Amino acid sequence: MLETTALLTDHYELTMVQAAMGSGTAFRRSVFELFPRRLPEGRRYGVVAGTGRALDAVENFRFDDETVSFLREAKVVNDEVAQWLSTYRFSGDIWGYPDGEIYFPGSPIMVVEGTFAEAVVLETVLLSIFNYDSAVASAASRMTAMAGDRPCIEMGSRRTNEWSAAVAARAAYIAGFASTSNLEAGRTFGVPTAGTAAHSFTLLHDTEEDAFRSQLAALGNNTTLLVDTYDVIEAVKKGVELTNGRLGAVRLDSGDLLTQAVDVRRLLDSLGAVNTRIIVTSDLDEFQIAALRAAPVNGYGVGTQLVTGSGAPTCGFVYKLVSRADSEDPAAPLEPVAKKSLNKGSVGGRKFALRRLDANGIAEAEVIGVGAPPEGDTNDRPLLVELVRGGEIVGREPLSDARERHQRVRGELPSAAFKMSKGYPAIVTIMLDAEGDQTFNPYAPEA
Amino acid sequence: MLETTALLTDHYELTMVQAAMGSGTAFRRSVFELFPRRLPEGRRYGVVAGTGRALDAVENFRFDDETVSFLREAKVVNDEVAQWLSTYRFSGDIWGYPDGEIYFPGSPIMVVEGTFAEAVVLETVLLSIFNYDSAVASAASRMTAMAGDRPCIEMGSRRTNEWSAAVAARAAYIAGFASTSNLEAGRTFGVPTAGTAAHSFTLLHDTEEDAFRSQLAALGNNTTLLVDTYDVIEAVKKGVELTNGRLGAVRLDSGDLLTQAVDVRRLLDSLGAVNTRIIVTSDLDEFQIAALRAAPVNGYGVGTQLVTGSGAPTCGFVYKLVSRADSEDPAAPLEPVAKKSLNKGSVGGRKFALRRLDANGIAEAEVIGVGAPPEGDTNDRPLLVELVRGGEIVGREPLSDARERHQRVRGELPSAAFKMSKGYPAIVTIMLDAEGDQTFNPYAPEA
Repeated sequence: MLETTALLTDHYELTMVQAAMGSGTAFRRSVFELFPRRLPEGRRYGVVAGTGRALDAVENFRFDDETVSFLREAKVVNDEVAQWLSTYRFSGDIWGYPDGEIYFPGSPIMVVEGTFAEAVVLETVLLSIFNYDSAVASAASRMTAMAGDRPCIEMGSRRTNEWSAAVAARAAYIAGFASTSNLEAGRTFGVPTAGTAAHSFTLLHDTEEDAFRSQLAALGNNTTLLVDTYDVIEAVKKGVELTNGRLGAVRLDSGDLLTQAVDVRRLLDSLGAVNTRIIVTSDLDEFQIAALRAAPVNGYGVGTQLVTGSGAPTCGFVYKLVSRADSEDPAAPLEPVAKKSLNKGSVGGRKFALRRLDANGIAEAEVIGVGAPPEGDTNDRPLLVELVRGGEIVGREPLSDARERHQRVRGELPSAAFKMSKGYPAIVTIMLDAEGDQTFNPYAPEA
Repeated sequence: MLETTALLTDHYELTMVQAAMGSGTAFRRSVFELFPRRLPEGRRYGVVAGTGRALDAVENFRFDDETVSFLREAKVVNDEVAQWLSTYRFSGDIWGYPDGEIYFPGSPIMVVEGTFAEAVVLETVLLSIFNYDSAVASAASRMTAMAGDRPCIEMGSRRTNEWSAAVAARAAYIAGFASTSNLEAGRTFGVPTAGTAAHSFTLLHDTEEDAFRSQLAALGNNTTLLVDTYDVIEAVKKGVELTNGRLGAVRLDSGDLLTQAVDVRRLLDSLGAVNTRIIVTSDLDEFQIAALRAAPVNGYGVGTQLVTGSGAPTCGFVYKLVSRADSEDPAAPLEPVAKKSLNKGSVGGRKFALRRLDANGIAEAEVIGVGAPPEGDTNDRPLLVELVRGGEIVGREPLSDARERHQRVRGELPSAAFKMSKGYPAIVTIMLDAEGDQTFNPYAPEA
């Protein structure tokens, strides 16, 4: 989006680098982790989105001349830091949960190893990406789970920041949405785009019939006609008449969608338009989609509630230093560190993770190893993949892979994951120390 | 942000242009309006932010070669539309509420007059900008109102999309925030930035004292030390000791902020650090800020709840065709149009607006004239300003003007506007027809 992502950064990241350079600690080898302390209230699972975008952001995290000049003139950094920034390039290693993976409290979504200075400056942009993208993907997955085989169309661009709009479409696509209204998402991320007409198009014409004729002439009989500008029944009749019963779909965008869908389906069938689909679009969320399961609806257009995370507009991921060397010697061993702040304590030590699956392939636990990978059975599935090695991006993949992954790993979840009522995470988080024994676990249900 | 804003657009905007070109209606003179049907549930007033950004978006709404090629290859548009897009430049007129203005249900935030085609394609990006920016500004204004003279610092970048982060800082600044953590907001919008250190900085060092020494050496005694990594009391004592009582501030980021602030204030005073300020930052919102009024707190850092609109992450603004000519003749008169959709009907006809003020300058009503400007008393204040004239941007202003405006116009509101409990809009919306008589008013409290 921006040519450089370097200023999508909190002021204090650079202040810390400056102070640490002064105290000779800036280049201590360090491990930061990005993780959730909990799921949004009542949610059963979360969905990771943002990994691919995070890799782009790391690659584009460069301080060009104009950026460095701004930082110097604004007195954010001194000359020494400015010099270091001007040649900044992340040179460390990153592992993480790939796009489309499921997460639970404590999941180490991203593990970043490098010097303190090079890793700390990535904090803000990584959190921004994962906190928003995953909020949308988590809501989207609940919607597509409730929609079953019926396609969901992402159309929330207008209800969120203009660039959020494009990335929301990407996140929704990963979580099973069929298409988006957002053209930038089509260009930048390759998400299929779709769209037909708004009420303004009908109002522009002298009559609704004129508008329908105009749209059919431009887009063909297989288009979707918006039928609620004036009178739904009259509009449906007109659409069927103008297409000799071969109309692609009608869209309902107001009123009680359940009863209207029933009435419109009956009318369409009585007119012989048995293949004309019904798309509904007004203020839908996962609960409404579930409530419409019994209705004769063929597709859902979802806007506001999707792009705002359906009540959970951010995931609350944090990025914490969990391990660091006690000198700038690159060979110095890493030592776990943790803060003790009330209610916000962290668990020191590098994390590893696997999803424990039972003999039927159903998820039972999120197993997090502290300081060493937990041992898994043959069914268990390691969750961290290598994303960056020595500064080189190695974890890129097509968006379709993320979409397929999400469908696959969502299929591992126990059925309780798909209850729409508020509840606990669908599986427990288990923390194991390097010896494989259970250790302090702030993510235990009783904690 | 992007070189062009043209694809921050819903697919159907271009599909409509294509169909309307086919039916000879695309260039009918039209008026679109951007407005809220209501305030977020329980809110007493809303704050406009986004106007200045919207002007930039209109100016940068150009379809360059690469963009047009994408649209052709993706078969979004035909050759005729592609040709029209390649020379697109908005040539009409725009009026609107300036940044920082207050809004109420039905306020015509933006009035766009041009051909249908040139005006309809702006729908998505204008809504994206106003819906997010104003959501943040509306939440921010409640926070600064509760904070009174104590400064609020915007630090929510990490909890929202990376570009939302920068524009949230702009919106918060308009609504009275003193500064932001976001460096891109500093560069792009000129918002003052600030920042010191995170817990990771303390954990990086061998001891908290080492970390404090390092920070004080880099940033001077006037800096803010984060004191809750291990033990707050010990940290405060250490910070005072290292600065001989001249420490600028301490930051509390966890635990019960009220009791801690009292304890820390007492400790600071007992140590002679009577000028050391206390900044609090953990999960604050307008209710928490209000609850801390009696606490010895000198400033608030606000993150998640600010950038997510404190429960209302979008404003629900819509963009509707309210008037259009019945031919493409530029001289043809405009005729009001309105849709009749259930619960989502619109009011046809171009809107004008003023804020009715009583003899003491206190706001009494949002008066919306349909088809003609309402007549006002001498105290009344017209709300729409000219922003674009014949395609030329004429409404630009410095961000400081918007910030001053907000403080001024918020001062006009009756005291009920600042109740934190859920309630009705602080003033009523009145709709007058061209003769000055009350007319159909979907924004009346009883409607």
